[in-house]
Amino acid sequence: MTFTVNAENKSFGGWHKQLTHQSSSTQCQMQLAIYLPPEASEQNKVPVLYWLSGLTCTDENFMQKAGAQKLAAELGIAIVCPDTSPRGEDVADDDNYDLGQGAGFYVNATEQPWAKHYQMYDYLVEELPTLIEQSFPVTDQRALAGHSMGGHGALVIGLRNPTRYTSLSAFSPIANPVDCPWGQKAFSSYLGDDTSKWRQYDASELMTDCQQPLPTRVDQGLADNFLVEQLKPEALERAAKKSDYPLQLHRHEGYDHSYYFIASFIEQHLRFHAEHLKR
Amino acid sequence: MTFTVNAENKSFGGWHKQLTHQSSSTQCQMQLAIYLPPEASEQNKVPVLYWLSGLTCTDENFMQKAGAQKLAAELGIAIVCPDTSPRGEDVADDDNYDLGQGAGFYVNATEQPWAKHYQMYDYLVEELPTLIEQSFPVTDQRALAGHSMGGHGALVIGLRNPTRYTSLSAFSPIANPVDCPWGQKAFSSYLGDDTSKWRQYDASELMTDCQQPLPTRVDQGLADNFLVEQLKPEALERAAKKSDYPLQLHRHEGYDHSYYFIASFIEQHLRFHAEHLKR
Repeated sequence: MTFTVNAENKSFGGWHKQLTHQSSSTQCQMQLAIYLPPEASEQNKVPVLYWLSGLTCTDENFMQKAGAQKLAAELGIAIVCPDTSPRGEDVADDDNYDLGQGAGFYVNATEQPWAKHYQMYDYLVEELPTLIEQSFPVTDQRALAGHSMGGHGALVIGLRNPTRYTSLSAFSPIANPVDCPWGQKAFSSYLGDDTSKWRQYDASELMTDCQQPLPTRVDQGLADNFLVEQLKPEALERAAKKSDYPLQLHRHEGYDHSYYFIASFIEQHLRFHAEHLKR
Repeated sequence: MTFTVNAENKSFGGWHKQLTHQSSSTQCQMQLAIYLPPEASEQNKVPVLYWLSGLTCTDENFMQKAGAQKLAAELGIAIVCPDTSPRGEDVADDDNYDLGQGAGFYVNATEQPWAKHYQMYDYLVEELPTLIEQSFPVTDQRALAGHSMGGHGALVIGLRNPTRYTSLSAFSPIANPVDCPWGQKAFSSYLGDDTSKWRQYDASELMTDCQQPLPTRVDQGLADNFLVEQLKPEALERAAKKSDYPLQLHRHEGYDHSYYFIASFIEQHLRFHAEHLKR
């Protein structure tokens, strides 16, 4: 088996498993988690929702805090939560929370000291789904979702690989990273100063020219401290208008950037993906 | 206002609030959390489920990991999660996780150096509900639940104060602490060597002689690493048999001691309490 199972917990009749494996993309041990609903078996493979987490998170935050397992069990959907960056003593890092380990931004870094290990885009687009589909009773029907930095990752990866996913969703995504401090800091470090290279990792830029749209849902809390400076859902909205992209953007009075917001609306995201995964 | 609100997050249309206040029982600042369902108002006060957490926990574990808010919002029940001990630089502590801060065992300590601050029993039975009912739109209809050390606390406090609660429940409680290592260590430290004083804090001992039973539900995972040495639900079962106590004890194949277990069955506990809180 490709994966080492470090822990497993029964959950709503299915199983949460925390896994590690050696990644050829990131050239280090990667940790992740999978939730398998009760019905998953070799005779009854289930589709997968990949969840990309935000800054400072690991595979654990979503599995422990989103309250997604109950509905995933009911709907018969597996969930895979990768880590947010490569990790380890040999992996380049930064003292700040928004760069380096825990802050991979789901890109393929081209600059030093990041380029060797920070290849999260390749890891997520190709390597991880292949390994998951070889190792667990799941189909190649994939949905993609995420929060904040992970919302950015989900939208970018989905927009660039529309044949690989049935549907996309994001909570509070960094929707226009080329135009906000988090994105500018990460992209200048990982991708260098040539801002023309940043465009391929910006959901609003990609959506502006999108030719092959996917069903896409975004939820944003209006009491989110990062809304104005970092998240900019209005840029995504403008892009969708330009390309006539079927973006469902929902704004919610009073909700913030925390997992309390995600938990409150994760059922809607799971039902949204279930509809498209079943097509 | 008695409480300082340190943080608040909208959750399922209601509000999670993290609070601090100066406690007269424990003579220190206590942190806690409350979840208020959307319908709670001065014109429509709601009943309260008090949740007591396990070793090493704070007010945060249950609120973040149990996934209880969705159903609490639907059923119109507030949830209060106190901390598991007094805390602070002036508060006695121990290097081990199972004694001192984070491990108050919900007793009134009589021994040094614990007696000054470790008065969690009085804090929970009298002080905290009084303050909560003065400060928030809640009634004096109370249910009591907990996990592990908190399951012990919930059963003991409920059994000793049957007029103050409508119903009790526990996940994986330390059911017979006088007869397990965790309980013996805590009780000898907090209550001294006279084991006759321990009895009043042992759910199985109290249930054996119980004259005024409350509706009580206990859930226990059979893959729980602590089951045999520390938890001993069979002692509670024997006690219930002796006193003809209406204990509902549910054992679950494959589930462990984690919040993945709690999340899987919290709906059943909330519905159980809702039935009795509405009487």
